Amino acid sequence: MTTLGQTRWAIAEGYIPAQSSFSDPALVSHETACILNVGETTAHLRITVYFADREPVGPYLVTVPARRTLHLRFNDLERPEPIPRDTPYSSLFESDVSWCNTRDWIRGAPK
Amino acid sequence: MTTLGQTRWAIAEGYIPAQSSFSDPALVSHETACILNVGETTAHLRITVYFADREPVGPYLVTVPARRTLHLRFNDLERPEPIPRDTPYSSLFESDVSWCNTRDWIRGAPK
Amino acid sequence: MTTLGQTRWAIAEGYIPAQSSFSDPALVSHETACILNVGETTAHLRITVYFADREPVGPYLVTVPARRTLHLRFNDLERPEPIPRDTPYSSLFESDVSWCNTRDWIRGAPK
Amino acid sequence: MTTLGQTRWAIAEGYIPAQSSFSDPALVSHETACILNVGETTAHLRITVYFADREPVGPYLVTVPARRTLHLRFNDLERPEPIPRDTPYSSLFESDVSWCNTRDWIRGAPK
Repeated sequence: MTTLGQTRWAIAEGYIPAQSSFSDPALVSHETACILNVGETTAHLRITVYFADREPVGPYLVTVPARRTLHLRFNDLERPEPIPRDTPYSSLFESDVSWCNTRDWIRGAPK
Repeated sequence: MTTLGQTRWAIAEGYIPAQSSFSDPALVSHETACILNVGETTAHLRITVYFADREPVGPYLVTVPARRTLHLRFNDLERPEPIPRDTPYSSLFESDVSWCNTRDWIRGAPK
Repeated sequence: MTTLGQTRWAIAEGYIPAQSSFSDPALVSHETACILNVGETTAHLRITVYFADREPVGPYLVTVPARRTLHLRFNDLERPEPIPRDTPYSSLFESDVSWCNTRDWIRGAPK
Repeated sequence: MTTLGQTRWAIAEGYIPAQSSFSDPALVSHETACILNVGETTAHLRITVYFADREPVGPYLVTVPARRTLHLRFNDLERPEPIPRDTPYSSLFESDVSWCNTRDWIRGAPK
């Protein structure tokens, strides 16, 4: 299968609330980037996170195996440092192979 | 009418909850791919579903007649196998005629 | 100002519930197509609505004056016939001048 | 880093409710445009706001420093005049450097 998508992608919107309104883990507030690698080689991604008032942080290194999807929760990123909560951010994805990305989010809604 | 759209499309995000929070069928948790065929010939689609930790499944074969829309619920896909619940997935659509796709979803929200 | 956008646009997803869950008009279930005409001439739009199991209906004729936006509720379309409720549909927009379109929707959520 | 994105962008959908349904500031009704400047120079943006029945208003002038994101709440725009509430609008962004934009919104939902 030929490659699909692109190797550079930005998600301008990002925000992880400090507190979630749900106890159900499936509905816990999170921000997710959904990455699909339809190619035959592992995709190595470098994610840079941008903020309003300080220098960007990164790269966060992520791999997506051939013919696999990764639903990456920004909540789970730990290195070089966790994404701060209650802080607007943007993210830039750069990959060595083309891939697809859409984003997904569930915000904590009032109970 | 000339064709519109493209013949290959990926939806990186996919997730069907195991349990829906609603009893109203219109609000039952589902993931839907909306496909529009504005052409004058039937569109034959092959859908491949990708997962995080196993080989892709497919093709799921779907047809959309000329000048018709299909709002396809991933819940309803049965062959070669149902889409597992509570499992992140991505989907790749390949069609023999160009078509349009947008996606739609309602997630189960807390009662 | 030069033109922006495109002259042909499809919204594959469409669905107007039969009953709304809200009494607040701002939250009544509706499907809206947001159209921006940044040009210096009136845009004449022809909208065709596609269904799963019958021939398309249209054209619905809509105009957007120069330098104006139209937030068009599909609920409000009456001629040649109202959009049926509880029925999946898709819509195709064709304009004589380029314009922009994004879509907007609020679905009835449980009270 | 090379530039990313484009210098002209429209958000056809816009609507700020008169009253928010939430007291939590994180969930207060707002419309936000998320702007990412991955470049090495400050981006100067001119925002024009379009309405259904009167001339556009603007420009609203906004800057996004190099390597920064701005999550701009339309609620916060004050000059040349606040965005009216309960009024459909569209917005056009023009920048002297390429940038990225996605939009974000939380609508007031019933308590």
